[in-house]
Amino acid sequence: MEFRELYLQNSLSRKKELFKPINDGYIGFYVCGPTVYSDVHLGNVRTFVSFDVMYRLMMYLGYKVRYVRNITDVGHLLDDGEDRVSKRARLEKIEPMEVVQKYSNGFHEMMRIFNTKNPSIEPRATQHIIEQIEMVQKILDNGYAYIVDGSVYFDTVKFHEDKQCYGDLSGRVIEELFTETRDDLKKQDQKKHPSDFAIWMKADPDHLMKWNSPWSVGFPGWHLECSVMSTKYLGETFDIHGGGNDLKFPHHENEIAQNMGCCDKAPCNYWLHTNMLLMNGKKMSKSDGNTISPQELFTGDSPHISKAYTPMVVKFFMLQSHYSSTLDLTDDALKASEKGYKRLMASLK
Amino acid sequence: MEFRELYLQNSLSRKKELFKPINDGYIGFYVCGPTVYSDVHLGNVRTFVSFDVMYRLMMYLGYKVRYVRNITDVGHLLDDGEDRVSKRARLEKIEPMEVVQKYSNGFHEMMRIFNTKNPSIEPRATQHIIEQIEMVQKILDNGYAYIVDGSVYFDTVKFHEDKQCYGDLSGRVIEELFTETRDDLKKQDQKKHPSDFAIWMKADPDHLMKWNSPWSVGFPGWHLECSVMSTKYLGETFDIHGGGNDLKFPHHENEIAQNMGCCDKAPCNYWLHTNMLLMNGKKMSKSDGNTISPQELFTGDSPHISKAYTPMVVKFFMLQSHYSSTLDLTDDALKASEKGYKRLMASLK
Repeated sequence: MEFRELYLQNSLSRKKELFKPINDGYIGFYVCGPTVYSDVHLGNVRTFVSFDVMYRLMMYLGYKVRYVRNITDVGHLLDDGEDRVSKRARLEKIEPMEVVQKYSNGFHEMMRIFNTKNPSIEPRATQHIIEQIEMVQKILDNGYAYIVDGSVYFDTVKFHEDKQCYGDLSGRVIEELFTETRDDLKKQDQKKHPSDFAIWMKADPDHLMKWNSPWSVGFPGWHLECSVMSTKYLGETFDIHGGGNDLKFPHHENEIAQNMGCCDKAPCNYWLHTNMLLMNGKKMSKSDGNTISPQELFTGDSPHISKAYTPMVVKFFMLQSHYSSTLDLTDDALKASEKGYKRLMASLK
Repeated sequence: MEFRELYLQNSLSRKKELFKPINDGYIGFYVCGPTVYSDVHLGNVRTFVSFDVMYRLMMYLGYKVRYVRNITDVGHLLDDGEDRVSKRARLEKIEPMEVVQKYSNGFHEMMRIFNTKNPSIEPRATQHIIEQIEMVQKILDNGYAYIVDGSVYFDTVKFHEDKQCYGDLSGRVIEELFTETRDDLKKQDQKKHPSDFAIWMKADPDHLMKWNSPWSVGFPGWHLECSVMSTKYLGETFDIHGGGNDLKFPHHENEIAQNMGCCDKAPCNYWLHTNMLLMNGKKMSKSDGNTISPQELFTGDSPHISKAYTPMVVKFFMLQSHYSSTLDLTDDALKASEKGYKRLMASLK
């Protein structure tokens, strides 16, 4: 069977590379999915629509693809150290899993509205607590983590001394990371080095989502789940890993460290990152009012647009720039996309 | 706040009872969801549509309802002892979680077609392996289970001696259960008594879905997940438990035994069971050809019907008999329902 050539912009090498699959004719493809604690925003939509097109392209080229996109339902902490799902549960006075259900449903509905294909497997972090505990143990056994008062931290310095690769994906220099880690500020003092990160966190008594482990009643660090689930469903090294640009550091850098620290293998051969969605030339931001939701686009109920746009017009707009470039959403650009989309549909008929 | 009276046909007392909630104004409601290893069949649809109406009724009466409906993605064994999900994965040459994803999507799509509301929480069995291991340990600690070669069995005889309630829901007499248990035939010889059932199974080396536990690398018994997930999300005793009639024994009987064996509390106060959907007066059965799928109903592509019926006509047909009665699907009955549904819609307009 002949495959047409596929070139990928690999974030790791920062080059366009000819894609070579690990197994002829097959692609293992992992994409970091949403943290289901709030409505999916338009930047997320751009990411998942982009990778949906990538998924369709791979299949069109004749590959059999196992597409894994996770649901993060635990462990993704806010700056104050509180779990995003738990915090929302507290605010809404409901059980964390009701938050997960509500926003998973909303996410799936939005993916349906944008006519994306379902992934082959959509694993949840809470579905893999045992496997996460096992990976923590392996990293500890290999000497790349240490235990402080029931929490387990990944030792980035020791890891980098041995493997000389921490920072390769994001281009960061480990020595410069001292002041930069937002992750897990609350327990900062327990870390040997500020760039170290938690792979298991001991839970405070009032923490809502927690499990027994050999180290404490606690919960896994956010970065761990993707290492565990990609390894479980795609193997220790798979073909392509995708995600939003904002996940490159620390999330993906730490994923690589965890996989290497556990199995001495890089998780994947190609890293793809979608770039930011801007609005009127600026970063979308709720505090500045420079933001628009998918729903507001569909209804036209926003000061930033002059009319409503259908999901397919929005999708057509998104697909007019390469996913690795920033994309600027403006009313004029949407109007132009609407014209273009109508023209395309007319010529199809 | 005043609530209108709600009477429920309680399978446990075999009587119609005035419903009294545990907490004023709140209802905890658990329904056994699908095992996602094949397309949802019409009998399942009847069950979930019935409980959807029940859910809407509770809310209409002014209750705040937490509605939990699980997804069984591991542990539901076939007579030969193989996991249903794993067997399908072997047949389709895919990863078990791909089977889960495919048929979960299909199930959700069918629930959407029948316009049912999403439950508040839709927990998966594999999401609660740690909690299942913990409940096995508690049952062992209480003396109602024993370990044989890495598997753990619930001791129904010891349990019944102490609690005098095994068989109450299903009306079975424990002494008569010797020849009846289909569950776990493969390891029958390990049981002290044929009515005992596995709560943890040691996995064969080629078993696909398995986890570490204190007893063996294995997997939880099927009945265990519902005890664990209802306890986790609704408490040790909640209000209402629903399910298909075919689950009354052994599944629900064993659920009660597990909850009592673990916490000395009955899981719930009211048990509701939907009755069977027949076709042309006989049990639906693939081997006899006396079966029809939802899709065949919608397209009319079946020798059993003269035309296609819309999902709302099928739903209207289902809701014309009480969920606890058998319901006979015939072409004539569907035609009559179509007329009735059209009349209802016309008068609404």
